Amino acid sequence: MAESRAKIRLFVTAELGPGAVVGLAPEQAHYLKSVMRTPPGTPLLLFNGAQGEWRARLEALGKGWASCAVEAMTRPQTAEPDLWLVFAPIKRARIDFVAQKATELGVSALWPIFTRHTAVARVNAERLNANAIEAAEQCARLTVPRVMAPASLEEAIAGWPKSRRILLCDEGGGGIAIKDALADVAAGAAPWAVMVGPEGGFAADELDRLRKLPIVTAVGLGPRLLRADTAALAALACWQAIAGDWRGTS
Amino acid sequence: MAESRAKIRLFVTAELGPGAVVGLAPEQAHYLKSVMRTPPGTPLLLFNGAQGEWRARLEALGKGWASCAVEAMTRPQTAEPDLWLVFAPIKRARIDFVAQKATELGVSALWPIFTRHTAVARVNAERLNANAIEAAEQCARLTVPRVMAPASLEEAIAGWPKSRRILLCDEGGGGIAIKDALADVAAGAAPWAVMVGPEGGFAADELDRLRKLPIVTAVGLGPRLLRADTAALAALACWQAIAGDWRGTS
Repeated sequence: MAESRAKIRLFVTAELGPGAVVGLAPEQAHYLKSVMRTPPGTPLLLFNGAQGEWRARLEALGKGWASCAVEAMTRPQTAEPDLWLVFAPIKRARIDFVAQKATELGVSALWPIFTRHTAVARVNAERLNANAIEAAEQCARLTVPRVMAPASLEEAIAGWPKSRRILLCDEGGGGIAIKDALADVAAGAAPWAVMVGPEGGFAADELDRLRKLPIVTAVGLGPRLLRADTAALAALACWQAIAGDWRGTS
Repeated sequence: MAESRAKIRLFVTAELGPGAVVGLAPEQAHYLKSVMRTPPGTPLLLFNGAQGEWRARLEALGKGWASCAVEAMTRPQTAEPDLWLVFAPIKRARIDFVAQKATELGVSALWPIFTRHTAVARVNAERLNANAIEAAEQCARLTVPRVMAPASLEEAIAGWPKSRRILLCDEGGGGIAIKDALADVAAGAAPWAVMVGPEGGFAADELDRLRKLPIVTAVGLGPRLLRADTAALAALACWQAIAGDWRGTS
């Protein structure tokens, strides 16, 4: 990236390839024009989640539109860990934060689920997606995590993919140490999901039901009571460190 | 804690013991009176960082004052991991967040240090302390992390305690995988510190100097660029999971 000196990195949905001309989304154009006052000719980095990262140049921009000329690939697409975060929605600032941090921590999908004690009645999936895109742009990811349609815990369990195991953050105290659970994770190649409840915790029968599923490993995160967002990020970081793509050097 | 049904948990500086009468800080009294509208007689939990946790009862309260009668110990003081977080100050909302989350993640001290690229000129140590206290109250800790006097990186290195090792979050890409570094941590009993730079990263000569210190282990946190706050929390979580007090079941 030093080569192109491009500091602005944007997610686009268009095809990327040498010579492609790509239009940006209205909010991206607004950001470049009015916030960053970016002149035509400025180098950019573009990625679309499937075709690697490309150096491009801003060609022209106006009110709500901008076009870029794609030049050369800077990084090829690579495989990424298959780790979902399944979480009960929490209030606005904290849910933004969870989406951003989980994206930096390399989740492949974000799935808001409603549990009995979830205090938030609605989730803004578009806002989750916008936060995930912004974090992906900033953290140099080649993908944006998929935001899955909000569902009830019931629905999530009913439709759960059989091969995907669940690392359940179990504030009820019944879990094993996450280190021990992750030794098991590191040994196998199954896709995983980290699941966390709402601030009030899972209901007792929800926890019972989850713990009995053969795909679920319930883990404890130490003697302090972690907030839901802290537990989610801690479990994701531990998963990446022990079983994910932090195992090589950075 | 079910026994006492106390949901309000407060840090106090007074001695705690059976029959003690303890005055609360003005802001605590305000919180109980005006925010929570707590009536006299309400059970509370109190801790002072040294003498365990005690059940108490709110006796009387007025404008800016409240007194409690201490009844019985609910938890004895226990040993906690000796893990500092040494971090470059960042902007207000994010530094609040770091203080809260690091407290939940069990740090024993918070030490703001100024590096070359630190964009924030001052740090409000009182505000850091208030955030740490609030998080400690909520997460059921028996202590509050010590907020150390802000210093320059130079000063911090010059006065660094010889036996305390440093897990350096090295966004420069020169570090080993944190999992491998932590296998070493788990084997020894030395006190540790997690050290993270500012959003702009450490300067090259700062990193060089740190990497050469025998107490420093530089670690990488995967292929994505983590923000400073994310790196701090991820490293703390990994440390607790592999070498700290998350190793037992919760």
